[in-house]
Amino acid sequence: MAQETPLYDRPDFFDAYLTLPRQQKGHDGAPEWPTLREMIGAINNQEVLDLGCGLGWYSRHAVESGASTVDASDISSKMIQRAKDMTPEGLQSRINYDVSDLNDLVLKTSTYDLVYSSLTFHYLPNESFTRLLKEIYTSLKPGGRFVFSVEHPIYTSPSNPSLEKLADGREVWPLNNYAEEGLRETNWLGGVKKYHRTVTTYLKGLMDAGFVIRDFVEWMAKREDVEKNPQWIAERHRPMFLLVKVEKL
Amino acid sequence: MAQETPLYDRPDFFDAYLTLPRQQKGHDGAPEWPTLREMIGAINNQEVLDLGCGLGWYSRHAVESGASTVDASDISSKMIQRAKDMTPEGLQSRINYDVSDLNDLVLKTSTYDLVYSSLTFHYLPNESFTRLLKEIYTSLKPGGRFVFSVEHPIYTSPSNPSLEKLADGREVWPLNNYAEEGLRETNWLGGVKKYHRTVTTYLKGLMDAGFVIRDFVEWMAKREDVEKNPQWIAERHRPMFLLVKVEKL
Repeated sequence: MAQETPLYDRPDFFDAYLTLPRQQKGHDGAPEWPTLREMIGAINNQEVLDLGCGLGWYSRHAVESGASTVDASDISSKMIQRAKDMTPEGLQSRINYDVSDLNDLVLKTSTYDLVYSSLTFHYLPNESFTRLLKEIYTSLKPGGRFVFSVEHPIYTSPSNPSLEKLADGREVWPLNNYAEEGLRETNWLGGVKKYHRTVTTYLKGLMDAGFVIRDFVEWMAKREDVEKNPQWIAERHRPMFLLVKVEKL
Repeated sequence: MAQETPLYDRPDFFDAYLTLPRQQKGHDGAPEWPTLREMIGAINNQEVLDLGCGLGWYSRHAVESGASTVDASDISSKMIQRAKDMTPEGLQSRINYDVSDLNDLVLKTSTYDLVYSSLTFHYLPNESFTRLLKEIYTSLKPGGRFVFSVEHPIYTSPSNPSLEKLADGREVWPLNNYAEEGLRETNWLGGVKKYHRTVTTYLKGLMDAGFVIRDFVEWMAKREDVEKNPQWIAERHRPMFLLVKVEKL
């Protein structure tokens, strides 16, 4: 989102994107999923909204887990078409796929029990994110919850986000410009723009919109998993994902 | 706290500590103070507890601002004696100074409107911190608030916490071992032990104790202040302080 053309509609990006483990395998390719799923809780007979649904893995999971209906949206028409194609016929009537831009999406009021979003909001500039939080708040029923993941601000901040070796042998995450919110241009999959904001801005934005914070996890790999897979060492030096659950009282 | 001997009672440390701007000048030597003061709000006629009061700058400020009485504690008897000596006679009856160890301090129940602590909790191991949060919750009246500052987890995490220059010229904060909570031994003022914990652990601890999060600030210098004082550049690369306000409903 907020790319010049919908990023996922660029053929080079789209093809590379589809090879990622989490696109190939859905939840099974997303190591943070068990934590996020626990935050979501029971969704039987609930109305769910999935913002930035991509290939629709989470939306299909929701209706398979008993959600009444899911409204799922993505800025990429190619992605939405692919998500539709991947949806078994028996579930199609319970998922409404829609192409929409989160920068100006307007939501129905007091409709959802759960609003969900995975790794999407760091593609929105601050003003769009703040506006969207108010839309989400309004769209939830009282007692409804909003659960999302983003790239952690420690991960979005550096000008070059990969481990560096110092002269004294330390391997470090080269944090800089944490205070400087805004655009970051990365080389990921041939060039992706994202927006850095601090943890402060995430949490204050949620509280200002009216939400009460219920859970907060800086997702990192477990020590024993890194011992088995030493190439994951960066996942102990810094958190890659931030997972948050908030409630509308 | 949790040092072998009360750190502030070691003569070498105590003398060096007293030369710090924030000990010499109180709030005027603490750049995060205006933000923290705003979080605290009005304290007229309120009962206040100051944990880790040091030289008592904040406790004296509280009674000068109309707090009814302040219970102030520190592990160092030398520090408490100095705080008493610095308290004007007219205020002495409204501040109860007490030597206490936050690792096993037991507090009065439903007594305080405000519990306050500045740059203290990163000297407590996790089990002591978690226990203390429950004490603080119990000690507050309903509607009472708890406001504190700590060294930010980004600041406590690195094995050597100072800016490093990479081969490509970038100045970076060398974050590592963020996931590894626990003891950090630093060279500050001749050797100080502190305890790193993640933002997750701070926030989950507060929520588990029953608190609702009301404010959260990763304190960093303003861009214009760093332009005037280029030697403060680190204060744009990473937050040094974390300030939090929570409420007991």
